[in-house]
Amino acid sequence: MAIKFRPEIKDLVPYKPGKPIADVKREYGLDEVTKLASNENPLGYSPKVKEAILSVVDELHLYPDGNITLLREAIAKKFNAKASQVLPSSGSDEMVDITSKTFLNPGDEVILADVTFPRYLSTAIMMGATPVVVPLKNFFYDLETMKSKITDKTKLIWLCNPNNPTGTMHTEEAIYDFLDSVPKDVVVVYDEAYREFVTREDYLQDSTVLLDKYPNVIIMRTFSKAYGLAALRVGYTMASEEIINNLNKVRGPFNVNTIAQVAAIAALEDQDFIKKSYEVNLEGKEYLYKQFEEMGIEYAPSETNHIFFNGKIECQELFTELQKRGMIIRPMYGTYSRVSIGTMPQNELFIKLYKELLNK
Amino acid sequence: MAIKFRPEIKDLVPYKPGKPIADVKREYGLDEVTKLASNENPLGYSPKVKEAILSVVDELHLYPDGNITLLREAIAKKFNAKASQVLPSSGSDEMVDITSKTFLNPGDEVILADVTFPRYLSTAIMMGATPVVVPLKNFFYDLETMKSKITDKTKLIWLCNPNNPTGTMHTEEAIYDFLDSVPKDVVVVYDEAYREFVTREDYLQDSTVLLDKYPNVIIMRTFSKAYGLAALRVGYTMASEEIINNLNKVRGPFNVNTIAQVAAIAALEDQDFIKKSYEVNLEGKEYLYKQFEEMGIEYAPSETNHIFFNGKIECQELFTELQKRGMIIRPMYGTYSRVSIGTMPQNELFIKLYKELLNK
Repeated sequence: MAIKFRPEIKDLVPYKPGKPIADVKREYGLDEVTKLASNENPLGYSPKVKEAILSVVDELHLYPDGNITLLREAIAKKFNAKASQVLPSSGSDEMVDITSKTFLNPGDEVILADVTFPRYLSTAIMMGATPVVVPLKNFFYDLETMKSKITDKTKLIWLCNPNNPTGTMHTEEAIYDFLDSVPKDVVVVYDEAYREFVTREDYLQDSTVLLDKYPNVIIMRTFSKAYGLAALRVGYTMASEEIINNLNKVRGPFNVNTIAQVAAIAALEDQDFIKKSYEVNLEGKEYLYKQFEEMGIEYAPSETNHIFFNGKIECQELFTELQKRGMIIRPMYGTYSRVSIGTMPQNELFIKLYKELLNK
Repeated sequence: MAIKFRPEIKDLVPYKPGKPIADVKREYGLDEVTKLASNENPLGYSPKVKEAILSVVDELHLYPDGNITLLREAIAKKFNAKASQVLPSSGSDEMVDITSKTFLNPGDEVILADVTFPRYLSTAIMMGATPVVVPLKNFFYDLETMKSKITDKTKLIWLCNPNNPTGTMHTEEAIYDFLDSVPKDVVVVYDEAYREFVTREDYLQDSTVLLDKYPNVIIMRTFSKAYGLAALRVGYTMASEEIINNLNKVRGPFNVNTIAQVAAIAALEDQDFIKKSYEVNLEGKEYLYKQFEEMGIEYAPSETNHIFFNGKIECQELFTELQKRGMIIRPMYGTYSRVSIGTMPQNELFIKLYKELLNK
């Protein structure tokens, strides 16, 4: 009599994270390794965050505030929402899991894009729901086809804007048009993980306006990207009180650790750091665009801190060859790869190594 | 058309954590508040942990090692297991959730005690499984009745030893007897959150021996109690490679934050701190036993860092009255409450305030 696992999880594969620097150093015996694989902030994080962390470092034997009171209030104040409309989580990773556990049962359909953030698919499968996967159209979410896939079984739609890994964005007008066409009993998660890097003015600048107009929308944001707190695991969600109350029932009781709570509050307060991060990212993006154009490399227009490109070389080979030279990027599929935008020296190093490879 | 949440979560209630010190200070305008509510280590944590944390504090913009390689290896080495038999998690909270998501579907039965760690029940309900709840017998797990409840639908059995909140323990012999009677396709989670505080020699001292003998057993442990890292959220599980591989598919990709990973490794290395924690706990327990006996307060024999007692006063009243005086304990039900064992000055303060209340 063998142990029986849930059949739903049979074909799940563990998430494949960007390779850690330490692993590459060990494997290749390298002293210096640059990681442009996980869309991390190359400037680190705000100095105010460090102060906040050091202020709690002697209290780590105490459980975190399970209600996450101060962080909820800080987010609500910052974005003109009510604290009861806000729920922090252990990164967006946990919130995707919580959302799937809150809404999805076998028989429910979930509309999502391919390629996009992989947790949307894996948590839908985990809950036994039916994923309805809509391929990207020229590296953009194909909103028209996604609309056409809505049935009376549709429970949830995932909308990553701008999208990871392609970096592509839909305008405010396109988002409104899409949301207007979605029945009010279908939940739309609007994932804005990269919102702080968007340069286009026709982006939906303040998504909190959606909360009043569309009670079926969940806004998901993170402190892992522009705020530079990926190591700590903290993100947040905004939605109607009814949705938040239900997500709240399903989350872990102490899902946001103490250091993450205080760090996120301090990070929110330092918008100068966010502005600086935006500027460094924009400079890097323009540099990489220019280099790619000179090298004849096709890329998708990015409103994020990463660029999705057709690397001419099979992605696993590009990944391995760059890695040997101390540079980690992210292989996607075929000849497509994703590179995170780093500091200018990091970007220049990436281009230098990449050119060496192409000219080999 | 209203949004539909999963019917399974309708009656779930958010976990009610021990009240944070800051909340009580705010509510009652108190400067000094002592918390003996959440079974935290009153000695804090090992000084070696602080060094480890400070060594990574400048790298928080980088994602955690998603494979948790070094912590897995450290745990495996410490407890003579293979790294492939170990899976860390964001506290036991997350591992209970992961376990339920790995094994439970509607129709499956889950055997658990009442009262015990509340997440066993809530995650079973969340997955639509049928909880089969067996009341404690004189504050102990009623292992005979639990055995008798096994059917061909039983998928999972939760065994917290020693138990939270009652502190009561079953012997090595009783555990073997129980496991021998469980069919090999029924998974038993053996939750040892409080193992480091056990004083009795007939306790199953080294539970890793179960891994070879019972491939259906999952051992669950935490760094939140004796190791004093509750704020950081880190625990671990040991089981067969097959079980670990399946749990691994279901967990969050970066479920253990970077600070928790390095802190846990450092904490494992400082067994002197664990020994000291054990001794302080034992002294406190003997003091509280003596005081309770003198006060005519009934209590359950504890092999943990907390005592479950019949407080003579309705538990919510005792909770509120002590709180006004700057002391937080944990109300349970009826006249039953739970107090965590603190340092001697904390224990003495608790007894002083409690006596004042009883003599009011």
